[in-house]
Amino acid sequence: MLINGAPGSTISIRDRGLLYGDGVFRTLRAVNGKALHWSLHYLKLKRDCTALGITCPDEGLLCAELDRVLAQHPDGIVKLIVTRGEGARGYTPSADTEPTRIWDFSPLPDYPPEWAAQGIKAHVCSLRLSAQPRLACVKHLNRLENVLAAIELSEAQQQDSQLAEGLLLDAGGHLIEGTRSNLFMVSQGRLVTPDLSRCGVAGIQRGRVMAWALQHGMALQVRDVGLDEALHADELFIVNSVIGLWPIRELEKRRWKNFPVTAKIRHGLDQQDA
Amino acid sequence: MLINGAPGSTISIRDRGLLYGDGVFRTLRAVNGKALHWSLHYLKLKRDCTALGITCPDEGLLCAELDRVLAQHPDGIVKLIVTRGEGARGYTPSADTEPTRIWDFSPLPDYPPEWAAQGIKAHVCSLRLSAQPRLACVKHLNRLENVLAAIELSEAQQQDSQLAEGLLLDAGGHLIEGTRSNLFMVSQGRLVTPDLSRCGVAGIQRGRVMAWALQHGMALQVRDVGLDEALHADELFIVNSVIGLWPIRELEKRRWKNFPVTAKIRHGLDQQDA
Repeated sequence: MLINGAPGSTISIRDRGLLYGDGVFRTLRAVNGKALHWSLHYLKLKRDCTALGITCPDEGLLCAELDRVLAQHPDGIVKLIVTRGEGARGYTPSADTEPTRIWDFSPLPDYPPEWAAQGIKAHVCSLRLSAQPRLACVKHLNRLENVLAAIELSEAQQQDSQLAEGLLLDAGGHLIEGTRSNLFMVSQGRLVTPDLSRCGVAGIQRGRVMAWALQHGMALQVRDVGLDEALHADELFIVNSVIGLWPIRELEKRRWKNFPVTAKIRHGLDQQDA
Repeated sequence: MLINGAPGSTISIRDRGLLYGDGVFRTLRAVNGKALHWSLHYLKLKRDCTALGITCPDEGLLCAELDRVLAQHPDGIVKLIVTRGEGARGYTPSADTEPTRIWDFSPLPDYPPEWAAQGIKAHVCSLRLSAQPRLACVKHLNRLENVLAAIELSEAQQQDSQLAEGLLLDAGGHLIEGTRSNLFMVSQGRLVTPDLSRCGVAGIQRGRVMAWALQHGMALQVRDVGLDEALHADELFIVNSVIGLWPIRELEKRRWKNFPVTAKIRHGLDQQDA
């Protein structure tokens, strides 16, 4: 673990990341000493910092720190947190605040390999995401809604251990995302992903799938999607940087057996990773 | 500063308070080695922990730690943070997670004394609070909306240094609270405070004012309040545990000169403190 370039595993209790969740983060997949899609992660980090008015650390500095992390931990999950740093008491950031850079590592979770090929069973959470256009898309440290949804999912898993992800709707009943993933729907040859202008996190894996669709001439829509429409879709799948892409094989009373378009997209993404 | 009973000023970067804002906090006023309204603060802490499913630390344990903080810092502001603690990677809390207890201290801010007697000028922030009934009222660590509103207020203060607080509306145009305070309105002899069932933080000073009204036979309403209605109120004031009570003397184009009911309420609260 590295904190502002020095080995360590603690931060100040006056860091605004703790006090207010005043920061952003990235979860990267490390493979053979290389962080997958670093440039996309850095672009997203920069955009998220800008949304909060945090000065994004220089890419060269972060790259050098990432290399040190990867030298010790070549395979697994690397987490980067950038907070606004310390400052005077109160919500107003001090002008001279220096962002805090935090690197952490954890081993790759042990997911059943069949989830990627045969799909997962997903749960619809009862928690509804709140609408905050100023924070929508941003992967910031205010993640209590995800925590509450994850608790709900783990309670549902006690009844049904097959459940692998919880899907979240907004107050208007639109499907937005998974507790830790973005969502796609294949419908009549078109790829559809929920509009995230009011809530949700726009992950870089979502961006990669959208780019793939555009590059391969597949019609792409970013718009509101109701649960009912999703239940009638030809295919559904979720993505994030750790799991890659998982088809959904069961949601509510609907079951899916084949995922031809999903498989094609996963194959396309895997080729880029190779 | 005390962390889990030991002197210190840092926490683990794996603490869920940092990772997800998964925790709650209290801001207490210390006077002559005594924390004002500790029992109310503890009740609120317990309620907020329950809302997040965090095991609230025992009152005796916290009291003993508070005494150690007050012995060193008898006057000023004491902050208590309780996070869910550390755990495995991911949003789902581990069953064996032990909450983290963090105590910090800072001197009392140097507010102009006339703000309490003659009132403040307030700004209406353009940021709209999002509606999340599961988190409404709770003083949790997901405070990015307050940070964005405070940044907005500090920008407005560069044009008008008289501005002392920013008021926040929800997406429906209802007045909810200040960036760091709760709001009251006096209208035709009645006391009105915004309904916080969708958003906002229900502070203990708000509870004290409501209790005072009930004890003194003053009609009290907790309901939606539009900005227009507030601008036509007989009196407006804000409260929190640090500032106590400040009347609002100027908001948008409206000015107030006299605050007879507000003064009576402040007097009543001060007598309880004495």
